Amino acid sequence: MNFNTVFHLVGQAVIFLAALMLFPLFCAVIYGEDITPFVVTIMIAGAFGFFMSNMFKKNAGSIMIREGYAIVSLTWIIASVFGALPFILSGSIPSPVDAIFETVSGFTTTGASILENVEILPKGIAFWRSLTHWIGGMGILVFITAITFRAPGRSINILKAEMPGHSVDKLVPKTKKTAISLYKMYVALTFIEVVLLCAGGMSLYDSLVHAFGTAGTGGFGIRADSIASYSPYLQWVITIFMALFGLNFNLYYLLLMRNIKPVFLSNELRWALIIGLSSIALITLNILPMYHNFSEALRLSAFQVSSIMTTTGYATCDFNLWPGFSKAVLFILMFIGGCMGSTAGGLKVSRIVVLAQVVKNQFIQALSPRSIRAVKLNGRIVDERTVARTTGYFCMYMLIIFGVFLLLSLEPFDFETNLSAAVACMNNIGPGLAKVGPAANFNLYSDPSKVLLTFTMLLGRLEIYPLILTLLPVHKMR
Amino acid sequence: MNFNTVFHLVGQAVIFLAALMLFPLFCAVIYGEDITPFVVTIMIAGAFGFFMSNMFKKNAGSIMIREGYAIVSLTWIIASVFGALPFILSGSIPSPVDAIFETVSGFTTTGASILENVEILPKGIAFWRSLTHWIGGMGILVFITAITFRAPGRSINILKAEMPGHSVDKLVPKTKKTAISLYKMYVALTFIEVVLLCAGGMSLYDSLVHAFGTAGTGGFGIRADSIASYSPYLQWVITIFMALFGLNFNLYYLLLMRNIKPVFLSNELRWALIIGLSSIALITLNILPMYHNFSEALRLSAFQVSSIMTTTGYATCDFNLWPGFSKAVLFILMFIGGCMGSTAGGLKVSRIVVLAQVVKNQFIQALSPRSIRAVKLNGRIVDERTVARTTGYFCMYMLIIFGVFLLLSLEPFDFETNLSAAVACMNNIGPGLAKVGPAANFNLYSDPSKVLLTFTMLLGRLEIYPLILTLLPVHKMR
Repeated sequence: MNFNTVFHLVGQAVIFLAALMLFPLFCAVIYGEDITPFVVTIMIAGAFGFFMSNMFKKNAGSIMIREGYAIVSLTWIIASVFGALPFILSGSIPSPVDAIFETVSGFTTTGASILENVEILPKGIAFWRSLTHWIGGMGILVFITAITFRAPGRSINILKAEMPGHSVDKLVPKTKKTAISLYKMYVALTFIEVVLLCAGGMSLYDSLVHAFGTAGTGGFGIRADSIASYSPYLQWVITIFMALFGLNFNLYYLLLMRNIKPVFLSNELRWALIIGLSSIALITLNILPMYHNFSEALRLSAFQVSSIMTTTGYATCDFNLWPGFSKAVLFILMFIGGCMGSTAGGLKVSRIVVLAQVVKNQFIQALSPRSIRAVKLNGRIVDERTVARTTGYFCMYMLIIFGVFLLLSLEPFDFETNLSAAVACMNNIGPGLAKVGPAANFNLYSDPSKVLLTFTMLLGRLEIYPLILTLLPVHKMR
Repeated sequence: MNFNTVFHLVGQAVIFLAALMLFPLFCAVIYGEDITPFVVTIMIAGAFGFFMSNMFKKNAGSIMIREGYAIVSLTWIIASVFGALPFILSGSIPSPVDAIFETVSGFTTTGASILENVEILPKGIAFWRSLTHWIGGMGILVFITAITFRAPGRSINILKAEMPGHSVDKLVPKTKKTAISLYKMYVALTFIEVVLLCAGGMSLYDSLVHAFGTAGTGGFGIRADSIASYSPYLQWVITIFMALFGLNFNLYYLLLMRNIKPVFLSNELRWALIIGLSSIALITLNILPMYHNFSEALRLSAFQVSSIMTTTGYATCDFNLWPGFSKAVLFILMFIGGCMGSTAGGLKVSRIVVLAQVVKNQFIQALSPRSIRAVKLNGRIVDERTVARTTGYFCMYMLIIFGVFLLLSLEPFDFETNLSAAVACMNNIGPGLAKVGPAANFNLYSDPSKVLLTFTMLLGRLEIYPLILTLLPVHKMR
């Protein structure tokens, strides 16, 4: 592995992060708050990034697979360490373990919090906390550009983690162009949401913070009851934008290019809509007796489904108090997640589409062993290797959830709390059920469990491979 | 599909069942109980079987894939209907839904019960209830003979459900021979267990009943506290025999043939021991503070681990009261199950061994995309198709567990109860956690849920394929 390349690029990312911290600094200035935490962090991060970037520039070479994985993993980890500094320095989250948990939760767009009361945070700190979601969402879009747009003639690659494979440098011109157009869409969608929220009477500050949380499908809010105390109009705006940020960004790109046909061919989009709408219908019927009228039940159902399925994690009610069936629907949606090529986490609808076809084909093959049926995704045949990688990913993913659940069970909490905590962190959702439900937080866990969950959020966000391959000597197993 | 073949063979199986019912009839005679339920059932089942067997004998042909699946599915279902008659006729379980639940639970060697109090059952009825486990275990051994012994030169086929594939008739001489030797081992092991239990002071009746439950890895008992009130010696005997019946019967066959080498090559055996022993160690340490001394903690831990991992379901304490970590270990063992080629249920250790290698190979492939590594099981390379079938099976299996959990969530019970009920039935274990824990029973569920769980036990036992392919028009999907 060429460490020069890795450190050079990680350094550049840290400089970029320091620059982005000017926004919360600016916010703190406006509200007349203490700016020291941001100034100090920007100076330290800036110096570190400058040093790393220049020190290792000379011998930096091309990015091969292992460098790619290392860059991705280290950027997320080091950014989280620097990102946690303002929380520690301001005294808002004095414990380093807690501050790093919160920051990783931000950058991985999870939205799980250890804060008992978010309402006492200074405005600048809360702004930074939400901005980490927006930055994390951007980071995930970097991956996307390098995969789905890569080679239009070939079958769509399902695993994001594969991105750094082969020689990325060859693709830079194309990647750079598509990255820029993706960022434009990301910024534009965020801007439209801010405008629509402001139009509904939300303050600019609140609108920005919630748009960041929606765009990154993160879920950090600034009120103890998340979105519950905002007007129905505002709740519907957020419901729709969570869904928009959970769909494949390629679709918007194609729509902008006036290339409508592939959008209709997308079975990922079709299944995302079928799963989402039927979940909304089922939950609405199930919770109807609990609420005053149909429109309230529908609004609550739609918001919670959109929030959980896109792995955002905002809430407009404590769904932990809903009947078991609605909770079970939400629990299963936690695994499914949003669409590939969005800022959402989870297994992703496209993987579910592939796995469902694998299951169906198994039955057909059981009857006629010689028949071979292809798996199709968005109108293209998925090659066998990618199918094998998808089923392998699912095994890995379940293995990690079971493992994290087992270790969390050392804590004195109930089955539902521990299992849903593992699922909520692995899928980057945020709230789980029971004691980590939407009305609660993750502060009940001990430091070792918080470190474990921090690692789980990173594993889920980076889709397992980069982190494991960077941290474990897997290459020695060859 | 040749229905003549199917009905002819199902008829023969029902005659065999009627003949086996002479044992509980004999037992009822000894204890001076009402023999009418058995006499009536034997007459009805005998007549039905005789009619079916002869009526369809003429045009019966060879068994192809679909006939094989249909025979397996229908035998299990029809045997359960006739097997339920004594419970209904004796008034022990008046509700047909309950009686069929209990009988399917018996034949699938699950051991989940709807009985509030097993101690009031007549001796003959309780004998029949336990005998269904022993018969179900025999039924599963029929599968085994047709698979693992089939073609020693080729890679081991992992999916039992594949058994009826190709033309079974060609293999009859070999299958018949190995079936007989497997049955001899099954009977011999059961006999040794009865002797050892009697030697420990257990009555012959109790010894037979518990040996049946152990041999089939079923779990129906005759006391409200399962095995808890028997002596430590008896508990250890049952612990060891549960483990013996949960290991691959091929190993005993090979040992009898003095062919020791493959036994040491068996990575399934190695992993079963590693998983089992480390679970025992972890739970012993975790529950030590709850009990008087180390030997008690070890005995309880070993019994419960052996019982859950082999999917038997006997209990010597209410493990639902154990700390969360021990419960999490048991919950995960529920998924793993016993070894392929035993009477145990669950995913099976060999599938876990294959899936673990798939995961490991994915990481290696992520670093060097061109490298292809084979998956090995018991010293042989598993062909790619079988690997794909194993990962496909895992997806299907998780899908079913999620689906059953979702439907059970319509009941007003907690998350842990509903999820563990789905897992316990799919893996043919018996008791789950919380309200369906070892000190409780499944009678709390409504009739529709009991029907669902009955179907789930059958799906788990027959490893999904036969039932789905017989009941659904999957062939039309081609």
